[in-house]
Amino acid sequence: MTERTSNPTAAMLVIGDEILSGRTRDSNMNHLARELTLRGIDLREARVISDDHDAIVAAVRELLATHDHLFTSGGIGPTHDDITAEAVAAAMETPIDVRDDARAILAAHYEARGVELNAARLRMARIPDGATLIDNPVSAAPGFSLRNVHVMAGVPRIFEAMLAGLLPTIPGGRPVLSQSLRVERGEGDVAEPLSELARAHPTLAIGSYPFTENGVSGTNVVIRGSDGAEIEAALVQLSGWLEA
Amino acid sequence: MTERTSNPTAAMLVIGDEILSGRTRDSNMNHLARELTLRGIDLREARVISDDHDAIVAAVRELLATHDHLFTSGGIGPTHDDITAEAVAAAMETPIDVRDDARAILAAHYEARGVELNAARLRMARIPDGATLIDNPVSAAPGFSLRNVHVMAGVPRIFEAMLAGLLPTIPGGRPVLSQSLRVERGEGDVAEPLSELARAHPTLAIGSYPFTENGVSGTNVVIRGSDGAEIEAALVQLSGWLEA
Repeated sequence: MTERTSNPTAAMLVIGDEILSGRTRDSNMNHLARELTLRGIDLREARVISDDHDAIVAAVRELLATHDHLFTSGGIGPTHDDITAEAVAAAMETPIDVRDDARAILAAHYEARGVELNAARLRMARIPDGATLIDNPVSAAPGFSLRNVHVMAGVPRIFEAMLAGLLPTIPGGRPVLSQSLRVERGEGDVAEPLSELARAHPTLAIGSYPFTENGVSGTNVVIRGSDGAEIEAALVQLSGWLEA
Repeated sequence: MTERTSNPTAAMLVIGDEILSGRTRDSNMNHLARELTLRGIDLREARVISDDHDAIVAAVRELLATHDHLFTSGGIGPTHDDITAEAVAAAMETPIDVRDDARAILAAHYEARGVELNAARLRMARIPDGATLIDNPVSAAPGFSLRNVHVMAGVPRIFEAMLAGLLPTIPGGRPVLSQSLRVERGEGDVAEPLSELARAHPTLAIGSYPFTENGVSGTNVVIRGSDGAEIEAALVQLSGWLEA
């Protein structure tokens, strides 16, 4: 059961046909999830959609209506299927064009490497009016934050670098704490005590995850919340019940 | 750009707080994507949502309205946070209760192991009226197909086994073929030829994915479609342009 805290909420939009065809395995969602958890921002939903203008516009609008922040990954490179910036601008009814600050970053980067800043590369300087650039220390072409929508690259190394620069600028909440207990019994045997525990501690999120390792089956119980003392108390209570 | 074929379409719903907190890395989405691609079923969207009844009901209804099939993973175990079956039944306005055929499967499985079929485990026999069971050769507790919604376990080994049994029962489409070309030039250098290629072959999906390996940077171009001869023609055309 999701713990309903007063923490900021977030959604993620992963954009790319290559994820939906199975060619590429997304890793940005897991990375973002971990980083947001550490900062006390609750990731409530993540979606993977294709490189399709209307699909991006619809998803941006829907997810923004119900979350404090939206993080996107993918579709901001120089090729014809890189349409995320345009679609986000359309969804938020904001004009978009090549912006001088972004162009200067690209010009300096490519000039230092003797590479032409051609029309395709210049598309990466298209930034919506009023957006703040997100630094790309890997390959220069910036992401951007347009109000509470944070648009980043799909290449994991670049996504992670952009996020590292972005996150300190976003107010977090109370970090979600968690403790886990490894129990060498099946989920079916711990289900009733866990259910009681959940009733006794409605502010905690109590999850159970079956495992089988080296022929031993059991359950990892994870207790999450923002109050460390209550998590500890729940853990002690559960241990007592399981030993009884 | 997504190729719009006449193939059946699908969406996926991954259900689980542990994915959104980053504790667990989902692998079922990539597995499903690959399997569906092989069978000519177009995965158009995937969502990760939390163990929340209302969120599941809303997502099931929304995704069903626009796709031929919906595949879910997670939330069908014996514990209090396993609420997928109830939520899917609610979304589809179908009664759900312990069903004799599912109970018999569980009873035989646990009896053979000397394990009690307690109330928690019996919850796994709750199956909506009219649903077809999906075989679970790993741990017995079945999934189910309720019309075009296919409800499976979250544990990857079980999800994969269930899917292997399920997929042959679902009519597929024309398998999506793909060829790729490794080009040792940046995306910005191949963007214009790729854009022309996409215009010349509107039924093909042309993607580009930058790579850096051992200090060499370049672009993997992937051409996908259902007509092998056209893919081949596009590839020859692109190679010619890049050599020119």
